[in-house]
Amino acid sequence: MNKNKVGTYNFVAEPFHVDVNGKLTMGVLGNHLLNCAGFHASEREFGIAEVNENHYTWVLSRLAIELEDMPRQYEPFSIDTWVENVYRLFTDRDFALVNKEGKTIGYARSVWAMISMETRKPADLLNLHGGSLTDYVCDRECPIDKPGRIKVATEEPVWVYQTRYSDIDINGHVNSIKYIEHILDLFPMETFKEKQVKRFEMAYVAESYYGDSLSFYKEEKEDGSIDIEVKKNDQEVVVRSKIIFK
Amino acid sequence: MNKNKVGTYNFVAEPFHVDVNGKLTMGVLGNHLLNCAGFHASEREFGIAEVNENHYTWVLSRLAIELEDMPRQYEPFSIDTWVENVYRLFTDRDFALVNKEGKTIGYARSVWAMISMETRKPADLLNLHGGSLTDYVCDRECPIDKPGRIKVATEEPVWVYQTRYSDIDINGHVNSIKYIEHILDLFPMETFKEKQVKRFEMAYVAESYYGDSLSFYKEEKEDGSIDIEVKKNDQEVVVRSKIIFK
Repeated sequence: MNKNKVGTYNFVAEPFHVDVNGKLTMGVLGNHLLNCAGFHASEREFGIAEVNENHYTWVLSRLAIELEDMPRQYEPFSIDTWVENVYRLFTDRDFALVNKEGKTIGYARSVWAMISMETRKPADLLNLHGGSLTDYVCDRECPIDKPGRIKVATEEPVWVYQTRYSDIDINGHVNSIKYIEHILDLFPMETFKEKQVKRFEMAYVAESYYGDSLSFYKEEKEDGSIDIEVKKNDQEVVVRSKIIFK
Repeated sequence: MNKNKVGTYNFVAEPFHVDVNGKLTMGVLGNHLLNCAGFHASEREFGIAEVNENHYTWVLSRLAIELEDMPRQYEPFSIDTWVENVYRLFTDRDFALVNKEGKTIGYARSVWAMISMETRKPADLLNLHGGSLTDYVCDRECPIDKPGRIKVATEEPVWVYQTRYSDIDINGHVNSIKYIEHILDLFPMETFKEKQVKRFEMAYVAESYYGDSLSFYKEEKEDGSIDIEVKKNDQEVVVRSKIIFK
């Protein structure tokens, strides 16, 4: 019964999509995860194109990725995705990253809301398509923590960046993947040579736009994790992120 | 006879791969072109992996892309690629960009050398695999100008950028696609809203590395084209580029 509830999509780690260690970058993995969410939803008639017809759109709220390893350059890999929960205002979608030997080397969790394209107000997911979204809820396990609380108290940004043409998506917003790239670029190369990202969390709080000045605040926590907050024009919080290296 | 000489590869314009106009970005197109070159060569046993075995590697020297249009978000498209010429030190590879209706909406030309991974000296392509590279030379037309001369005389850079983690590829070099993104980011958003890139040329002159300071020099020519030169650490030229907007 769970079989049709899980979508599986195949990829290869392309040369320009791997980092200095020859491993797939977090930004590219994030892009693949979000594409898989789109493929899975659209194959079940609740994708962006389908909900757009009723003037609704999906909004990504949280993303948490936890990894044992990453695919290497030219290696094939696959991503499984399924719906874990549907609530009134949010739905939880999970992912598994499977390497070329068929071993699961990572998991991810995401939280989505659906909003009206006119009023920007959230829609009731339990009533979408007469409640049929809940038919896809799958009991496959996703054995990583849910996205947690991220809090940054530092007052001096470690980087200030004005958004450019390549940051902006078709909606005129800074795209969700670009934040991931900019956040990882806060760390020096030595970090990536000595350690690997074990867990990466993103909380998408507000949109930023072309020409916005993004300030990146960074704070190391007692448990060794690093919390990051990005504000636009030094006022409103745009995204928060937590990174655990190992 | 030309059929087996041309490789055709299929793609879809993904949501995070389109710009504010909903059209595929030049960086993503460049990435696809270089991947297609790799697929085509490796299917014919002269790909990176095959030549690496003999301690040689392919180096991209020039890329020129000329476009009537770009695929839109979610549109399928395909890229054809073939070898136009093999000389002793260089080979010319061409591309056609074909939209979902089967109409060719752009062409590209690239120039490659093969170098020894030990001495970095160029190899004789006419003798590669007993001269078999020339068996793939194809007489399909590529009706765009060859890459031309690019010259920048301005002395004040319009942008200075220190390379970061996300710029660097598995070889420790700034990756060829990142230069394309950084160069287009020199232009304000209005340029992309009012115009589209008709022709884009890249000349890859030298490698740059993590932490290098890249200075971007820009000069508008009498014919309206814009020439760009990128120097590392304000000394050596790394890449040159020419952009024609329409």
